[in-house]
Amino acid sequence: MNSNVAVIGAGSWGTALATVLADNEHNVKIWTRRQKQADEINNSHTNTKYLPGFALPHAIQASNDLAWCTEDAKYVLLVVPTKAIRDTVTQLKPYVKDYNILIHASKGIEPGTSKRISEMMEEELDEKKGEATVVLSGPSHAEEVCERQPTTVTVSSHAAQAAEQVQELFMNNNFRVYTNQDLIGVEIGGALKNIIALGIGLTEGLGYGDNAKAALMTRGLAEIARLGIKLGANPLTFTGLSGLGDLIVTCTSQHSRNWRTGYKLGMGKNLENVLDEMGMVVEGVRTTKAVKELSNRLKVEMPITEALFEVLFNEKKPEAAAHQLMGRVRKHEVENVSLLLGPDFQEKWQEKSWSPNDNE
Amino acid sequence: MNSNVAVIGAGSWGTALATVLADNEHNVKIWTRRQKQADEINNSHTNTKYLPGFALPHAIQASNDLAWCTEDAKYVLLVVPTKAIRDTVTQLKPYVKDYNILIHASKGIEPGTSKRISEMMEEELDEKKGEATVVLSGPSHAEEVCERQPTTVTVSSHAAQAAEQVQELFMNNNFRVYTNQDLIGVEIGGALKNIIALGIGLTEGLGYGDNAKAALMTRGLAEIARLGIKLGANPLTFTGLSGLGDLIVTCTSQHSRNWRTGYKLGMGKNLENVLDEMGMVVEGVRTTKAVKELSNRLKVEMPITEALFEVLFNEKKPEAAAHQLMGRVRKHEVENVSLLLGPDFQEKWQEKSWSPNDNE
Repeated sequence: MNSNVAVIGAGSWGTALATVLADNEHNVKIWTRRQKQADEINNSHTNTKYLPGFALPHAIQASNDLAWCTEDAKYVLLVVPTKAIRDTVTQLKPYVKDYNILIHASKGIEPGTSKRISEMMEEELDEKKGEATVVLSGPSHAEEVCERQPTTVTVSSHAAQAAEQVQELFMNNNFRVYTNQDLIGVEIGGALKNIIALGIGLTEGLGYGDNAKAALMTRGLAEIARLGIKLGANPLTFTGLSGLGDLIVTCTSQHSRNWRTGYKLGMGKNLENVLDEMGMVVEGVRTTKAVKELSNRLKVEMPITEALFEVLFNEKKPEAAAHQLMGRVRKHEVENVSLLLGPDFQEKWQEKSWSPNDNE
Repeated sequence: MNSNVAVIGAGSWGTALATVLADNEHNVKIWTRRQKQADEINNSHTNTKYLPGFALPHAIQASNDLAWCTEDAKYVLLVVPTKAIRDTVTQLKPYVKDYNILIHASKGIEPGTSKRISEMMEEELDEKKGEATVVLSGPSHAEEVCERQPTTVTVSSHAAQAAEQVQELFMNNNFRVYTNQDLIGVEIGGALKNIIALGIGLTEGLGYGDNAKAALMTRGLAEIARLGIKLGANPLTFTGLSGLGDLIVTCTSQHSRNWRTGYKLGMGKNLENVLDEMGMVVEGVRTTKAVKELSNRLKVEMPITEALFEVLFNEKKPEAAAHQLMGRVRKHEVENVSLLLGPDFQEKWQEKSWSPNDNE
């Protein structure tokens, strides 16, 4: 069944998701603040700043008029940088209808408040509308989605039915959509993997190899899970697409802005220059700040975030940060991994099945 | 304290580990069947077939005489392909002393018997010696170890004290060694990641992108964990260095033989030709066979192993196998991830903390 969808934000990911929706024969209107960009999408069917080289489906209509974009929409999909969320939702609020299903596909945490994207949306809209927010997250480079490469993502919401409707909306042969009830875990995994990607990029820029990279990614996932669990997430979410999957794609692909930013820092470039060169928002930088604050407050050990914070905001030398991360002394891996699910789980498991041969 | 160590097997990994031991000023004798290779190591201090371009420490002494290599050794480190384990241990048996600590750093499962490496060693030696076997595993390309790149590995044994001695033996600033009590989990993770690497290589050879790769790696880890848990492994081990860490390094690095083999198969080459081209043992091929048998017997769902088995041994087209893997219909990610730790854990977690806001 065809639906009307308003996509708010015409960066690379918003445009790629609009492409999926157009492939599924939904009526897609995409909003951008810039008239010139809207004209390009409508007339040339391209978005050269964000997705150079890709032809967009002609059915995607663009406008800088929020009222027009949302007037007949059932679904409203927000895909703007984390720091633009509150402002965009405030502009959007007069046009949100009771029957709208709100979706977001942004990845970040707000410094100062430590809020997730859906929490910011809830605050800016009235509570009832916010509760049904659906997040879409997972390992998904926009460029590959536009190439119709196989891609899998997770949708999650406190409202299970809304999540299932969004699953239906996006699902096709190339774009596989799974549901997960754990909204907190899905949002935390998506936001925090950008920190780890910055850190991995940094060590690779310094010349560290694949062995070090694999070790840091492993510790990175444990670090993400530790914070997530403290916030009430399901540990298993971090082993899924929006956790491990997104971590892998962001840390191992040249497409990743966060990885590239870290890589250039590791090569000795200055943060300000690197961000200028990128020309697009690098979410991991602000997320590092937000998560550093949150981990201090909740007393969660996050060595990679900590080291990166010092490099980004306190002029610590990348060499010193990387050396510190690789040299950390911890003798028993069991201690290390038990941090992932907590000592209770470790003990319970040992009681239950610590007889190495009982299944053979 | 300096120790005497016999390294049995002079392939790339055995030679790299001998290098670590020589760096730590242990007395290292390395055994190879081939006199010519022993001469090269002794005279040119190189091992060009397996580690082209690397200069080995002069302190490493090589020989094709097992008696001489082991005569004064306290530690005996076995690093031979899985299919050579039984034969090598049989040859070695007359020289093994009661006070020896046996270590292995091989990664595989035996077809037919479904035995792990340490189990094969136990069978071929007397039981008492086998019980103290220590496994060394983790994300570690031999080339990078020879470059003294930072590397982290796990050692595990049913005898905790033996594991700690082996940790001490190898530990240095570049080579960090962690202990883990879960011998089964460490051996299973190391062996099975080669299957996933073959599968990932195959899809990349077919032109699939990073989004698909991340999704398959995520499912691959879940598949490894499902089998491991059934065999009595600790689920947490699969989130550590010898599980996730080794999976990452093997699936994302050009150094990996298993990935390269899969890649060439995906490009349409014939298995026999690919294995000829590699010139070194590709453990994943036999492991796929062994694990297919084991998963059938234990009734564990392993779709990646299954698909790869069909390609390797039943002439299934790589395209058809990849298509099947990416298109699998499962709607709820929770079902998917709960397979990792089992439904009990999922329920327990939900009872305990399924109140998304109670920590905020």
